[in-house]
Amino acid sequence: MKRNVLLVGAGGVAHVAAHKLAQNNDLFGNIYIASRSLDACSDILDSIERKNNYKDPANKIAAKRIDALNVHETIKLIKDLGISIVINLASAFCNMSILEACIETGAAYIDTAIHEDPDKVCENPPWYENYEWKRKDRCKEKSVTAILGAGFDPGVVNAYVAYAKKHFFDTIDTIDIMDVNAGSHGKYFATNFDPEINFREFKKVWTWIDRQWVEKAVHAEKQVYDFPVVGKQPVYLTGHDELHSLSKNIDANSIRFWMGFGDHYINVFNVLKNIGLLSEKPVKTSEGLEVIPLKVLKACLPDPKTLAPNYTGNTCIGDLIVGTKDGRKKELFIYNVCDHKSCYEEVESQAISYTAGVPAVAAAILVARGDWDTKTMVNVEELDPDPFIDLLNNIGLPTETIKKSYSKKRAPRTKNK
Amino acid sequence: MKRNVLLVGAGGVAHVAAHKLAQNNDLFGNIYIASRSLDACSDILDSIERKNNYKDPANKIAAKRIDALNVHETIKLIKDLGISIVINLASAFCNMSILEACIETGAAYIDTAIHEDPDKVCENPPWYENYEWKRKDRCKEKSVTAILGAGFDPGVVNAYVAYAKKHFFDTIDTIDIMDVNAGSHGKYFATNFDPEINFREFKKVWTWIDRQWVEKAVHAEKQVYDFPVVGKQPVYLTGHDELHSLSKNIDANSIRFWMGFGDHYINVFNVLKNIGLLSEKPVKTSEGLEVIPLKVLKACLPDPKTLAPNYTGNTCIGDLIVGTKDGRKKELFIYNVCDHKSCYEEVESQAISYTAGVPAVAAAILVARGDWDTKTMVNVEELDPDPFIDLLNNIGLPTETIKKSYSKKRAPRTKNK
Repeated sequence: MKRNVLLVGAGGVAHVAAHKLAQNNDLFGNIYIASRSLDACSDILDSIERKNNYKDPANKIAAKRIDALNVHETIKLIKDLGISIVINLASAFCNMSILEACIETGAAYIDTAIHEDPDKVCENPPWYENYEWKRKDRCKEKSVTAILGAGFDPGVVNAYVAYAKKHFFDTIDTIDIMDVNAGSHGKYFATNFDPEINFREFKKVWTWIDRQWVEKAVHAEKQVYDFPVVGKQPVYLTGHDELHSLSKNIDANSIRFWMGFGDHYINVFNVLKNIGLLSEKPVKTSEGLEVIPLKVLKACLPDPKTLAPNYTGNTCIGDLIVGTKDGRKKELFIYNVCDHKSCYEEVESQAISYTAGVPAVAAAILVARGDWDTKTMVNVEELDPDPFIDLLNNIGLPTETIKKSYSKKRAPRTKNK
Repeated sequence: MKRNVLLVGAGGVAHVAAHKLAQNNDLFGNIYIASRSLDACSDILDSIERKNNYKDPANKIAAKRIDALNVHETIKLIKDLGISIVINLASAFCNMSILEACIETGAAYIDTAIHEDPDKVCENPPWYENYEWKRKDRCKEKSVTAILGAGFDPGVVNAYVAYAKKHFFDTIDTIDIMDVNAGSHGKYFATNFDPEINFREFKKVWTWIDRQWVEKAVHAEKQVYDFPVVGKQPVYLTGHDELHSLSKNIDANSIRFWMGFGDHYINVFNVLKNIGLLSEKPVKTSEGLEVIPLKVLKACLPDPKTLAPNYTGNTCIGDLIVGTKDGRKKELFIYNVCDHKSCYEEVESQAISYTAGVPAVAAAILVARGDWDTKTMVNVEELDPDPFIDLLNNIGLPTETIKKSYSKKRAPRTKNK
């Protein structure tokens, strides 16, 4: 049975997912895109037409208006349209409302980022326990499939861990997830996705070391890592969603996330942070207007969607895993390299949105096909990685693996700044 | 006759002026301070009491509420209180309204900064011609004394030019006004006066070279100047109010303004500027709220008034003048050095506010006394500088003069960045 899909959101990642749904629309029934703005939906549908990306030209995507924070409205839309799979690529503030609508209607739920409460930042770990996992029992009870964090990171990098465990390791000691964007957008400064969500990631760093949560300062630990294709890049220890499920689901001593930042980014970030412009707490202007500095900063920065046309270079995101196989130490780097320019040629987007949007559609295909129709709530590392990685190899995100010669140092060299 | 004074404004400069009015309250009749916020007025009055700064303890300053953009309200206040001198230290957006109220009532008008239109930045020179000077004829016709730009710069630096012309030079070739704050407030970043007005100064640079207006980029020309007391400091060619009257009133080839900025200031400034956070043009948040980035930045930055308690170091502001006397080349640096800590001990303020606020009160004393009661509109360089400089020597801003051995290079060395 072909299943009807509702894509919620019309930002950069939803743009990519809509293109991928169109390219695979023979695998689904009716496909809808819904957001607060019909204009934003229409822009995406125009882009699909421009790139001639419908596989079955008879099965067009239709646009709907939705307030995704309104559970009743979302339930009604799911019911009216006969939706069986919801791909949530709306703002992370909407996760719990959309999930609730799925639980109430029985539709499968897929997202790519963890829920955020607008009033809280960098809550106590594990983050999933504060929100999504509280609905685990209800999903199970109602046989609702809910696949959390099915973008690239979280998402594919979680599958890489499951893949490593299944095929290459008996035990895992450390997992270092490495995420670098070595591309150039030609702007003075821009974030690659919603600045409001982006900067919230960088308030403090929660990392998993020796089976414990450790809190660190932002950008305090740096290393230069020699990536395939993009070469040596500075990366900083960073807090990130996937640590909060991997630390629970994977038997490993340390799990860390490293994100690449150039000196210019760090300088701009520090100025904005130190002045208070990254704050989600309102300030009052001398005219008495209450505003949230981060929202004003967002309004000043380029819309991530506008970066794509001139983006050049590649992203490289992967898992550096150290462990043992057959009693011998082993080190693997499992990764994907994605070219901004090719993404633009294919779907009029850049590689950051592309790497996040394609896996969400892969997950939807696997749910539709039955491989991942779990009838309960899971994070990606709990699923069989093979069909996911196979599918991604064929729809734009090929996986590569490098076997490293094992050296004495277990962890990458770190340097306190 | 002792003349009643109305001080409009309750910011950092008004704070100093109120203290100085109190210290010289035997020279005036009733003294009032008026602003949008009675609380701000009260804070200043409390500070005067704390420092025991009333010369005549019987003649206390009284607080009034005023909307200084409302001409009728201001006229009514001036009439009701029998005011004969208005010192305008409110936001520069209010100049023309307050001036109008003075012209209508016949009260003398004194300010320290040029009028600003909220919707325009760095208009075509000379700036005074766009606003204040359009009222010159009416001031003359109604015998209204209006003294424009009677702070330190503009103000005392204009008097230094008149002083040099009167006593030391037959001809003047170049005037380089040098303004450096070599103090430290211990904060990550702060402006020394209203950030909204402060940053508007730095959109582009209008400078007077070879008897013509020349437009330059901001922070594009730098020199390191060896100041008395504070030593070698980097200063940048900057646009500033006083060039716009000196270029008209003084017979000199080139008149420039140089402001001191450290590398940290320049870095922060460039980040804020490049991102658009110094813009006075509204942006719209994704929630649809229209806000002016500069006003939000202002709300995030420390209130200049709060910097005083921990400020250390000195300001040095002066005129480097090159010309001839008795047929021989001559070079003088006429300047004042002001110590932040002493200012705080005397009036609970820092040197930036102190150097701007004290001259405005000196001008008020000269108007009250008759020396400067011009019955028309003037800029400070058109007045006899001697009583002003004498008075300032006695009330906290002593003038020093260094005779430089004349070197071949007329202009300070400049370096394009």
